[in-house]
Amino acid sequence: MIRAGIIGSTGYAGGELVRILLGHKDVEIKWYGSRSYIDKKYASVYQNMFQLVDDVCKDDNMEQLAKEVDVIFTATPQGLCASLVNDEILSKVKVIDLSADFRIKDVKTYEEWYKIEHKSPQYIDEAVYGLCEINREKVKQARIVANPGCYPTCSTLSIYPLLKEDLIDGNTIIIDAKSGTSGAGRGAKVDNLYCEVNENIKAYGVAGHRHTPEIEEQLSYAAGYPITLNFTPHLVPMNRGILVTAYASLKKDVTYEEVKAVYDKYYANEQFVRVLDKDVCPQTKWVEGSNYVDVNFKIDPRTKRIIMMGAMDNLVKGAAGQAVQNMNLMFGLPENEGLCMPPMFP
Amino acid sequence: MIRAGIIGSTGYAGGELVRILLGHKDVEIKWYGSRSYIDKKYASVYQNMFQLVDDVCKDDNMEQLAKEVDVIFTATPQGLCASLVNDEILSKVKVIDLSADFRIKDVKTYEEWYKIEHKSPQYIDEAVYGLCEINREKVKQARIVANPGCYPTCSTLSIYPLLKEDLIDGNTIIIDAKSGTSGAGRGAKVDNLYCEVNENIKAYGVAGHRHTPEIEEQLSYAAGYPITLNFTPHLVPMNRGILVTAYASLKKDVTYEEVKAVYDKYYANEQFVRVLDKDVCPQTKWVEGSNYVDVNFKIDPRTKRIIMMGAMDNLVKGAAGQAVQNMNLMFGLPENEGLCMPPMFP
Amino acid sequence: MIRAGIIGSTGYAGGELVRILLGHKDVEIKWYGSRSYIDKKYASVYQNMFQLVDDVCKDDNMEQLAKEVDVIFTATPQGLCASLVNDEILSKVKVIDLSADFRIKDVKTYEEWYKIEHKSPQYIDEAVYGLCEINREKVKQARIVANPGCYPTCSTLSIYPLLKEDLIDGNTIIIDAKSGTSGAGRGAKVDNLYCEVNENIKAYGVAGHRHTPEIEEQLSYAAGYPITLNFTPHLVPMNRGILVTAYASLKKDVTYEEVKAVYDKYYANEQFVRVLDKDVCPQTKWVEGSNYVDVNFKIDPRTKRIIMMGAMDNLVKGAAGQAVQNMNLMFGLPENEGLCMPPMFP
Amino acid sequence: MIRAGIIGSTGYAGGELVRILLGHKDVEIKWYGSRSYIDKKYASVYQNMFQLVDDVCKDDNMEQLAKEVDVIFTATPQGLCASLVNDEILSKVKVIDLSADFRIKDVKTYEEWYKIEHKSPQYIDEAVYGLCEINREKVKQARIVANPGCYPTCSTLSIYPLLKEDLIDGNTIIIDAKSGTSGAGRGAKVDNLYCEVNENIKAYGVAGHRHTPEIEEQLSYAAGYPITLNFTPHLVPMNRGILVTAYASLKKDVTYEEVKAVYDKYYANEQFVRVLDKDVCPQTKWVEGSNYVDVNFKIDPRTKRIIMMGAMDNLVKGAAGQAVQNMNLMFGLPENEGLCMPPMFP
Repeated sequence: MIRAGIIGSTGYAGGELVRILLGHKDVEIKWYGSRSYIDKKYASVYQNMFQLVDDVCKDDNMEQLAKEVDVIFTATPQGLCASLVNDEILSKVKVIDLSADFRIKDVKTYEEWYKIEHKSPQYIDEAVYGLCEINREKVKQARIVANPGCYPTCSTLSIYPLLKEDLIDGNTIIIDAKSGTSGAGRGAKVDNLYCEVNENIKAYGVAGHRHTPEIEEQLSYAAGYPITLNFTPHLVPMNRGILVTAYASLKKDVTYEEVKAVYDKYYANEQFVRVLDKDVCPQTKWVEGSNYVDVNFKIDPRTKRIIMMGAMDNLVKGAAGQAVQNMNLMFGLPENEGLCMPPMFP
Repeated sequence: MIRAGIIGSTGYAGGELVRILLGHKDVEIKWYGSRSYIDKKYASVYQNMFQLVDDVCKDDNMEQLAKEVDVIFTATPQGLCASLVNDEILSKVKVIDLSADFRIKDVKTYEEWYKIEHKSPQYIDEAVYGLCEINREKVKQARIVANPGCYPTCSTLSIYPLLKEDLIDGNTIIIDAKSGTSGAGRGAKVDNLYCEVNENIKAYGVAGHRHTPEIEEQLSYAAGYPITLNFTPHLVPMNRGILVTAYASLKKDVTYEEVKAVYDKYYANEQFVRVLDKDVCPQTKWVEGSNYVDVNFKIDPRTKRIIMMGAMDNLVKGAAGQAVQNMNLMFGLPENEGLCMPPMFP
Repeated sequence: MIRAGIIGSTGYAGGELVRILLGHKDVEIKWYGSRSYIDKKYASVYQNMFQLVDDVCKDDNMEQLAKEVDVIFTATPQGLCASLVNDEILSKVKVIDLSADFRIKDVKTYEEWYKIEHKSPQYIDEAVYGLCEINREKVKQARIVANPGCYPTCSTLSIYPLLKEDLIDGNTIIIDAKSGTSGAGRGAKVDNLYCEVNENIKAYGVAGHRHTPEIEEQLSYAAGYPITLNFTPHLVPMNRGILVTAYASLKKDVTYEEVKAVYDKYYANEQFVRVLDKDVCPQTKWVEGSNYVDVNFKIDPRTKRIIMMGAMDNLVKGAAGQAVQNMNLMFGLPENEGLCMPPMFP
Repeated sequence: MIRAGIIGSTGYAGGELVRILLGHKDVEIKWYGSRSYIDKKYASVYQNMFQLVDDVCKDDNMEQLAKEVDVIFTATPQGLCASLVNDEILSKVKVIDLSADFRIKDVKTYEEWYKIEHKSPQYIDEAVYGLCEINREKVKQARIVANPGCYPTCSTLSIYPLLKEDLIDGNTIIIDAKSGTSGAGRGAKVDNLYCEVNENIKAYGVAGHRHTPEIEEQLSYAAGYPITLNFTPHLVPMNRGILVTAYASLKKDVTYEEVKAVYDKYYANEQFVRVLDKDVCPQTKWVEGSNYVDVNFKIDPRTKRIIMMGAMDNLVKGAAGQAVQNMNLMFGLPENEGLCMPPMFP
């Protein structure tokens, strides 16, 4: 039995981690960390867990945690994980960081976009970017995994094969993304009130969202050359789900079948990436509550561009589900253990 | 391995049955019935099942089905199941009917409220009303189970203990219920369009909804005397969930602790009925996607009435989940097999 | 031109008051009060007012306001208006208080339910309860109007004629009400976040909501005897709208036509109360953005009860619209001035 | 008093036309056309109009209509208006066509994208494209106005100034648009059911939506050279609103102030186009129910692209409001008559 501790268990991603791990036959949650709710019953914060979780919330004590568990998940704002990890901790437990602290290899880029000093840059090199479909073998060996951001997961998986096979010009990529509101977290802000979000859609972080350098880095690896792109997230009145609509110029004339073959080359054997049938557009509702990413594409011969689309649940494949997928790999379990719940519709 | 067939697999309740059974380790779905989508791939009707279900939809042939499966679920409009069952079928397979055909013991009452002739009244007596928490032992022996309606499940479980212990006057009961829109089915009607339901709430079927006699019958059994009551359903802009707010006059002065003890007497050992802590009101979101019913109550000393509340997912405990719970009982499996998914929040 | 000042102009009711008064040909808003946003542009708080309102927000200085305007609207939490009014102010301006301070005639009842001391009980007697359809003549003479609460407005108008004509037993009344989320205000609370409210419904304030004594007082006047009743509000995932479903025992056998005649007696000449056609249930969406209350009823001969229903926009007839209707009466304007906008659908 | 007739008055755009015209002091609606609801009371189709509209729906008899009214609005699917207009009708009344029939000057392009034969191509040249801000003077003289599509209105107004001033390369334009569900019409289709749309987002008509050639034509006029572009609409779970996020490569280095000046050059005197303050992103909720289009932009120096954004209510400025704006111009009324309602929030 793997003993797990969660720092930040009362955020939406933390809550989702609890939901998934409760259904994971090889894991026992030993520590429900939550700075905001110390000593409160976890099930009084998330009533869905009434009678399912009896624990009370504890402080963010990573030293102590390292003695009591085998794996620590940090579902916390940027900065926290980097400020807590050290050699002793990493010698005892595996760490899966759901924040951005170890995602970006260039510490300057991180500090520029996140406007904070990185407290433990010495672990950045070692940390593995936990996009399992791409870095599977490295994840298996990792002590510390940087769990990818929600937008970067969906964006990268939607675009990756075409860059890898050099079908598109990386510097023409434009990513227009749409996210449900759970991505904004559980903080009490006027902007996230029901009446402000409902019946509304807006772009935010235009030309400046922090996931931009993360996406650029991953896509640059795929392309083999540095990519600068546009990424625009939008807030959509729904709880869960991310939809990515990405545009790029094709480097040559291609047929539907050729592009389909490229997607299949990378994803035919991937359980959690589903390349949809021709002309079926991904919808976030079709993956809700599951670890799937649905992708598809459409060639536009008029503009010689291709439109790439991806849909996933931001809290599952975009956060907690992918974290568990990484954990499975790190502990030598079947990669899909605890992650086979079908999407819930409607 | 239990082989299951679903008639009406492309309605919302049918779809939910598929979702739940796919996660049930002892069941294999052998027949996806759908009169509207014969020969179409099931996963093209419900894209969430892409790569999870490869079958095509078949016609409603119960005779043939009886040869190929061990249990038939009918998730169809009233009248269909009653028109198809016969002795031969019942000698071969167990039938769990999610429609109203076998719920009401008095055939005249059925025919009056449903405005159709009952085609096989000879099985009404034999059929067991599948509210597991109340009729558990009978369900275990049943060949045919009448799976309760969504409103009756939530209403009965919210009120049952107080009638059983004679704390309230059954003829003062008023049930004000609120349901998500999946309860209205997947038929293409203007009234169920997004723009008609969204940002809107209304009562419907006032003083005439067909679930009224079903609730009255079950509560009359609990009370030991005939009950006539008011039941008013409302349509709420959400996909899933039923909330029942029920009112009744107390027969005597009672304390919170006394009433709590009564609820606990009936539900303390029931996995799927959660009696919430004092002053916590049930919320549909806290049970979404799960088989739980959350109940609670509030005594109003000013009016000497008690307010009883219950929340559940109309597609799970109110339809498909309860059907699987019944199936588990009928086949001697653990009652919670395949039903332990925690509620999903948010 | 009537000069108006609004204290609390950046709450949702205050914002609605601005929207309505901007379209009122006889009114000019001179003072946008908002303690939270002093010196900020009003249009930066409510971007819908960009280029329509150029003013900045000011503090809650009622003394100064009294010198500059003809009417003051207080759209603030309970206690504020009562703590600010005095003889000098009332000698200069008319006050329309959207809070509860002057709605309840018995100061003890107010203090018990609101848990605060009333700071100016000397004006309670003078204040007129501004339910225009019932107290029209008194409103015309008033210096200070207590604008009714949202739930009390909808509840009282739905039930009033039947009590007035003694058709129902007042002490059997049960009011089950459902409200959109704007009723919860614009404060940044976790409970009102999008992800907490969306796809969810719950009761709150069960057997203890502060609007209970207000409703009881008004209905007692109508009945001519003291009424104690149950009132249960619910939070619904929509921005606007209140639906009331009320139940009461009939005192005698009545026909549809008789009850209809009673409603018509009181409302046939009321522009803002629409008695719907037979069997048409009120829906909140049909009155959104307008000052209408739609009411209807259904007799249940089985239980000898009657179900009374009412729907309105909580921010218009339930707050700002009714306040303007009161202002019109107080200033001798046509009662419907600025209030004739048709409901918006969808 | 202008007498107006509406063909297609029971669609969502038709309903909105009724709402707006009821508040227009110079117009009287004389004909509520609706093929689907002939002889039914209009207010029974749209209960919001109860007691406001007493008329019954009539058939689509344009000949008769031409005798009885001064202006005909056709809020109908493509093909209908073109099949009904003729010289006699146009000699008697003005026609404002909300369908696509007269929007595209090249009849072949129309027939290719709409897959129908154009029944009266002889009027295409004469018809004026009714984007008032751009074609104001021509609209004033028109007998027949092609009311622009919802997406084209929002897209064109968001991009127009930058093309006109040659700041961007027209053939790099990518328009990613998001629409509320009322844009899909009131037809009873499974895809538009509440449970299918709610908690969901998807792209549709990718690389093939019919509004593409309309947008291209208008932007080509602005640029002075032919433009081919990508346009991708998305369906968003909300009733109303369109948000356009458009991308293009800048032709030269520009500052915020320079671009702002360009927008102001075209829109500073336009009442219904609001250029927002720096860094304020348009939100659909801020224009709901009004005739405003809110636009803004963000320069991305990293990619040398500019992101242009626009938000409007698809049923108002995107359909009925713009039609009334056109009518006002055609009849010599103040352009904003009946259109000054402030946006409704929340």
